[in-house]
Amino acid sequence: MTSKQRVLSGMRPTGKLHLGNYLGALDNWVRLQEEYDCFYFVASWHALTTDAENSGQAPDSTIEMLADWLGAGLDPQRSTLFIQSLVPEHAELHLLFSMVTPLGWLERVPTYKEMVEQLGLESPSYGLLGYPLLQAADILMYKPQWVPVGIDQVPHVELTREVARRFNNTWKPVFPEPGAKLTEIPKVPGTDGRKMSKSLGNAILLSDTPEEITAKVKPMMTDPARKRRSDPGTPGLCPVFDLHKIFTPDAPRDACATGCRTAGIGCLDCKAVLLTHMLPPLAGIRERRERFAAKPREIVEILHEGSRRAREFAKKTMDEVRAVINLEPK
Amino acid sequence: MTSKQRVLSGMRPTGKLHLGNYLGALDNWVRLQEEYDCFYFVASWHALTTDAENSGQAPDSTIEMLADWLGAGLDPQRSTLFIQSLVPEHAELHLLFSMVTPLGWLERVPTYKEMVEQLGLESPSYGLLGYPLLQAADILMYKPQWVPVGIDQVPHVELTREVARRFNNTWKPVFPEPGAKLTEIPKVPGTDGRKMSKSLGNAILLSDTPEEITAKVKPMMTDPARKRRSDPGTPGLCPVFDLHKIFTPDAPRDACATGCRTAGIGCLDCKAVLLTHMLPPLAGIRERRERFAAKPREIVEILHEGSRRAREFAKKTMDEVRAVINLEPK
Repeated sequence: MTSKQRVLSGMRPTGKLHLGNYLGALDNWVRLQEEYDCFYFVASWHALTTDAENSGQAPDSTIEMLADWLGAGLDPQRSTLFIQSLVPEHAELHLLFSMVTPLGWLERVPTYKEMVEQLGLESPSYGLLGYPLLQAADILMYKPQWVPVGIDQVPHVELTREVARRFNNTWKPVFPEPGAKLTEIPKVPGTDGRKMSKSLGNAILLSDTPEEITAKVKPMMTDPARKRRSDPGTPGLCPVFDLHKIFTPDAPRDACATGCRTAGIGCLDCKAVLLTHMLPPLAGIRERRERFAAKPREIVEILHEGSRRAREFAKKTMDEVRAVINLEPK
Repeated sequence: MTSKQRVLSGMRPTGKLHLGNYLGALDNWVRLQEEYDCFYFVASWHALTTDAENSGQAPDSTIEMLADWLGAGLDPQRSTLFIQSLVPEHAELHLLFSMVTPLGWLERVPTYKEMVEQLGLESPSYGLLGYPLLQAADILMYKPQWVPVGIDQVPHVELTREVARRFNNTWKPVFPEPGAKLTEIPKVPGTDGRKMSKSLGNAILLSDTPEEITAKVKPMMTDPARKRRSDPGTPGLCPVFDLHKIFTPDAPRDACATGCRTAGIGCLDCKAVLLTHMLPPLAGIRERRERFAAKPREIVEILHEGSRRAREFAKKTMDEVRAVINLEPK
């Protein structure tokens, strides 16, 4: 047990990760390792809230995702990497929280309402309504000081704080209220200009080779108003320029912007500059992830060892929880 | 493991039981032991759905209730007597069921709607809405062929069957669908003529001494139309006669009925006959329950041993469940 502050975060096992996942969360997770005692988990039960019948893909998806986690620099020596469903105490804490959480709190969670609308669900499941409460259990189990989240997840941390307060008031103070550590998420457009997403088929994967990335970037959409090479363009309207902002240092990026505005360079020239700066760091991640992907047994061992450590922590929390609720005669 | 068919049922830890609890469930549980492999549990988590802040009363209430269970004739050698919260696998199964159970199924459960109305809840908890689903997990965990229930609980068994089907269809067949074994519940009026209930203060407890029972029965309400000794009465409208139907053999009961209708006997005479037949069986239960109540350590040991046995069964079910859902890479 270290005296560092703790952070906790998780991802559903979606398989190979893309640049948006990396820049929106994973890259930040890697950096947090320098300063915090980090718990990162595969949200295996959460994946069931919307896709229960396809649960059989979870094992392979977990291996692929973990290869990306490790390739990006998560270090199992420093961080506890675990699978939610290997720490069944989460389910018990979730159930206990459900007894003191008003239905209305969950019905008002914006991401729940969005999901029901987006998925066009006529009858959402009880588990989908409760997933932010399962998250509250995932988080509070480890009593972290911070939860790294994007802006759209802030209501979940707020709910988690309310659940902690409600538990502490109903029984005895067990859970400190964690703070939301807002992750600055850059805009990561897909190759068609829309938000990067595997289901849209516009994603650049961490597992893509330099050749694959080049083949995806070359035909990438640019400022739609710049129809001919001789037309001046507007970098602010160009998804390629959003990637420049992420990968290209100031001087060459400014040169590209000026070249675009004056029609001094063409879009392919601009993409070539981007690739010069984008390929090397991604190649480094890819090479590491491939080394791990080639040894799935090692990934399984890392997850089992991490889950064992997480469960040790979880059991201590549950001992406290059971003691204050006090249901059984001793 | 026996080859007998299994039944499962549970009770919230409400403390000392009354005649209504005995005749509505416990007496039947005792008889089922002759023919079935019985699992009976203290529904400790269910008690939190409506009374979370008073959970600290559960240990004492559990001891008192178990003294009644044992006094009435439940036999820990033949039946598995356990505490729900000592088998945390129930919480995991509940969570997994929640992923495939439409919210609408739970919103339509009649007992849920009644509870919300009766308790005047402005904002029921997520756990209250989910309690029939927790029951489904409690039941299916032990794959019983039968669930002994009163008529008002039949919708819960129906829901349990639907959840089993949904699980089996989403993944693979794991759960047989249990049947509802309808318990014939006699009408058990309290001393004021309303349904017997501890909260109404009209209950005769299994722990009451013969003197206490006598003191409760003597002033008991009778047919309100029979104002004077010389008025003829209507046994069908008399709560004392409902107790006669339970305790008094046909001949003396018919004599009382005739006496009442003809004003041949007074209400106190009638109650004296009732007490003659009511006190001896209740005294037997009370004497046994007092012997157990005097040894709470023994009760705790029975519950721990039963919970260990139940958990062994539950772990096997969960191994099957986890194998078909298949979330973790092996």
